[in-house]
Amino acid sequence: MELILPGDEKKPLILMENNTSQPATGCRRTAAMLVVMVGLPATGKTLLAKKLANYLNWVGQKAKVFRVSDYRRKHVELYSHDLFRSNNSEAAEVRKKSSLEAMDDARNYLLQGGQLAILDGTNCDRATRAQVMDMFGRQHQIHVLFIECVCDDEDLLESNTKEILKHSSDYKEMNLEKAVEDFRLKMEHYLEQYQTMSAKREPQASFIRLVNAGETVTARGLESPLHTRILGCVPLFNPTAKVLYFSRHGESEYNMLGRIGGDADLSPRGRLYAQALARHFSDKARVPGLRVFVSEKKRTQQTAAGLPAAYQVLPALNELDAGVCEGLTYEEMQDKYPQEFAWRDRDKLRYRYPWGESYVDICRRLEPVLLDLERSTNVLVVAHQAVLRCMLGYFLNKPDDELPYLNVPLHTVIKLTSEGFHYRMETVKLNVECVDTYRKQPRNCSDVRSAEDALKTVPKHYDTLNKFWTSSASPLIEQH
Amino acid sequence: MELILPGDEKKPLILMENNTSQPATGCRRTAAMLVVMVGLPATGKTLLAKKLANYLNWVGQKAKVFRVSDYRRKHVELYSHDLFRSNNSEAAEVRKKSSLEAMDDARNYLLQGGQLAILDGTNCDRATRAQVMDMFGRQHQIHVLFIECVCDDEDLLESNTKEILKHSSDYKEMNLEKAVEDFRLKMEHYLEQYQTMSAKREPQASFIRLVNAGETVTARGLESPLHTRILGCVPLFNPTAKVLYFSRHGESEYNMLGRIGGDADLSPRGRLYAQALARHFSDKARVPGLRVFVSEKKRTQQTAAGLPAAYQVLPALNELDAGVCEGLTYEEMQDKYPQEFAWRDRDKLRYRYPWGESYVDICRRLEPVLLDLERSTNVLVVAHQAVLRCMLGYFLNKPDDELPYLNVPLHTVIKLTSEGFHYRMETVKLNVECVDTYRKQPRNCSDVRSAEDALKTVPKHYDTLNKFWTSSASPLIEQH
Repeated sequence: MELILPGDEKKPLILMENNTSQPATGCRRTAAMLVVMVGLPATGKTLLAKKLANYLNWVGQKAKVFRVSDYRRKHVELYSHDLFRSNNSEAAEVRKKSSLEAMDDARNYLLQGGQLAILDGTNCDRATRAQVMDMFGRQHQIHVLFIECVCDDEDLLESNTKEILKHSSDYKEMNLEKAVEDFRLKMEHYLEQYQTMSAKREPQASFIRLVNAGETVTARGLESPLHTRILGCVPLFNPTAKVLYFSRHGESEYNMLGRIGGDADLSPRGRLYAQALARHFSDKARVPGLRVFVSEKKRTQQTAAGLPAAYQVLPALNELDAGVCEGLTYEEMQDKYPQEFAWRDRDKLRYRYPWGESYVDICRRLEPVLLDLERSTNVLVVAHQAVLRCMLGYFLNKPDDELPYLNVPLHTVIKLTSEGFHYRMETVKLNVECVDTYRKQPRNCSDVRSAEDALKTVPKHYDTLNKFWTSSASPLIEQH
Repeated sequence: MELILPGDEKKPLILMENNTSQPATGCRRTAAMLVVMVGLPATGKTLLAKKLANYLNWVGQKAKVFRVSDYRRKHVELYSHDLFRSNNSEAAEVRKKSSLEAMDDARNYLLQGGQLAILDGTNCDRATRAQVMDMFGRQHQIHVLFIECVCDDEDLLESNTKEILKHSSDYKEMNLEKAVEDFRLKMEHYLEQYQTMSAKREPQASFIRLVNAGETVTARGLESPLHTRILGCVPLFNPTAKVLYFSRHGESEYNMLGRIGGDADLSPRGRLYAQALARHFSDKARVPGLRVFVSEKKRTQQTAAGLPAAYQVLPALNELDAGVCEGLTYEEMQDKYPQEFAWRDRDKLRYRYPWGESYVDICRRLEPVLLDLERSTNVLVVAHQAVLRCMLGYFLNKPDDELPYLNVPLHTVIKLTSEGFHYRMETVKLNVECVDTYRKQPRNCSDVRSAEDALKTVPKHYDTLNKFWTSSASPLIEQH
């Protein structure tokens, strides 16, 4: 997922780097940086590379992974550990060629405006690393940062290996026994060639070393805020398998009234959902060590109150702040702020309510929560529509413009289970009726549209003043 | 400086922590965390503690430093190395008492809602550190993170020592020779007692070790995104003395016309300033290894074009984006968007132009640039009024509400020189006439004020349509 912020093409957070070969006057602009993964198989490099790219894209950096094994597979159809034997000169040629192709593509990506490329391979020997530094650093003044993954925890190695055997296309034609043996031999070949990164022997290299998925971290020669920003997130990208649960609060009184924002109590049906949710996690989905996160709003805390775990309040989970429109219905917003309403419909991702927030703002403030979830399992997040759209967008790698229109219905539990880097999503609708709060983007988003056009997709809700439901469809039939 | 963002009291970035001793239902909210500095004298602990607190406050965390030596000085007026002799039991009592008082105050601060306390002392032995972990971690479930500073670089030790002898009140009554000797003996006493942090001997401790001010960084047992966020900035807080220069671009055509935003060229007088600035840095202020940062706007690049160094374009330095008001005069803004104009005057720090930015937004996007400057010297930043207000506010530790009204006049070079943690500011006005763009907050900021009230403090500018200067004062006399 790539989150472009308003004006971000103009304003990447990354710094332009100095280039002493430039003339005394004039400008050079490059944000180019290469991250090079280093380490034996099954140390978590690929997962880390992908998670890092996903995270950096989320915070507005254009990052892309170039995986050497993808290039190798283009040249060699049949896979075997023998490819990695140090004295197999034919295979060594193929591997070298694959590595160079990946490097070439990464370099072209950076020279054509990409901000950050990640070279995902073993890069186990100093000669290869020196070549990378020459090709990127010396020839193109591209900052190179190595990230070495080391793993001496037997359990972690075993679980990483299992994930590889399960998901890597290299092993899909082998039976498990053969795959295990093949992987063991591949590891042996690499161990013969492996030279760990050393400040003494590679004094020019900037590097981060992660031991056992961030249990211990060492960094040397970091050169820029982006280097240290990476240092500040990689220890959190935990490779262990995880399950995360998400739910919106139960139907609130404001949901029934079609009012946005506010801090209303649950409706009677919302309270029923809270009970159903508690039963679900007490009986059906017993989750060991369950942790529950809620927002500061009453409706999430009332929803979580019966769960078999204490909840923790995270202000970052609060619903999108609608500023001057807090507590209004869409009809009232159209009446009072037609210009704002039209602007919002035109670009719901970037639109900020006056004195309020946009979806982009939510993505920013969710950053530490997402990093916390990256290293967690068995967490249930009880939050709000816009907030959950952003969170699911992050984990499901959705394009940014889709975020404001992801359907996250009320009274439904969403379960994400990690499968390597990806997440599998399941939804469980608990059987409690509720209104539908989903509003499609209307066709007409112009400043001069009629109120009728503006309100065409507003979901039905109860009108207290006139005591009727605003739409003819029965409110008791749930419609998502 | 403490930068409170809109609604930030409600939305600290920090996560609430789990507390297993809580009942199964209910909530616990604590954002409390203690950072404990560890290390010998002259390893840069105090500077790092203060810079970390300043940075965390800037990004919206409430952080406060508790310095053990400040407590010790309350008990012992006269200072001598003898206070630190290991077999001086009387002095040991005083030091222990001081340490406990600092810990008490830090604990009370955290229990009363403070987010992050930094305990600045040597904390050189494992027994002291175990006591801290017990008093905060075990008794109050407050996360404890140790930051150990190690220095084996002779030059760095010497420059750190010089800074201490110059600025510490302990030595202000001694002549230099005596102070040097006293400091040497103090160091010897500490060396006798010092036990470096060890993952083996202190397996429960989360810690970051910085060797030679971030040249090498090691971290172990980091537990939360805030831990790693700290890991992501401390290597950048460089203790070496630094000099930073700031200038607004020369007067632009829009400045003359009283128009905000845009991407105008320099006015003829602005071009004269660019020449004067180039002369200033080529002749008067010859800066070794000068680096120049500019924004993407033509007016900063034209201003920097003649300087004796290539400039680097940092999009983060762009002027505050005035959104729908880009290119308007204040008179036109009052005419088209009187509500927005009044809102802005009421809370200029937090006000965001529709589809534009606020000062708070600028502070956020400046973060990586500020971190870059923290590790730099001899940099000239050529930028814009609002951006420079925020940058100077950061370095001069100004209260957040003052930022939008700091006076940063055109055609003036501002020089900041570090003195320990603080910066000394000097301004050099280059002798080139220009308009004044400073607009005071008007007295009347209500929604229903008259246009006359709204426009009372608008500085004079040229009106192209009517071909006159909007104020009676001569435009050729510079008025700041």
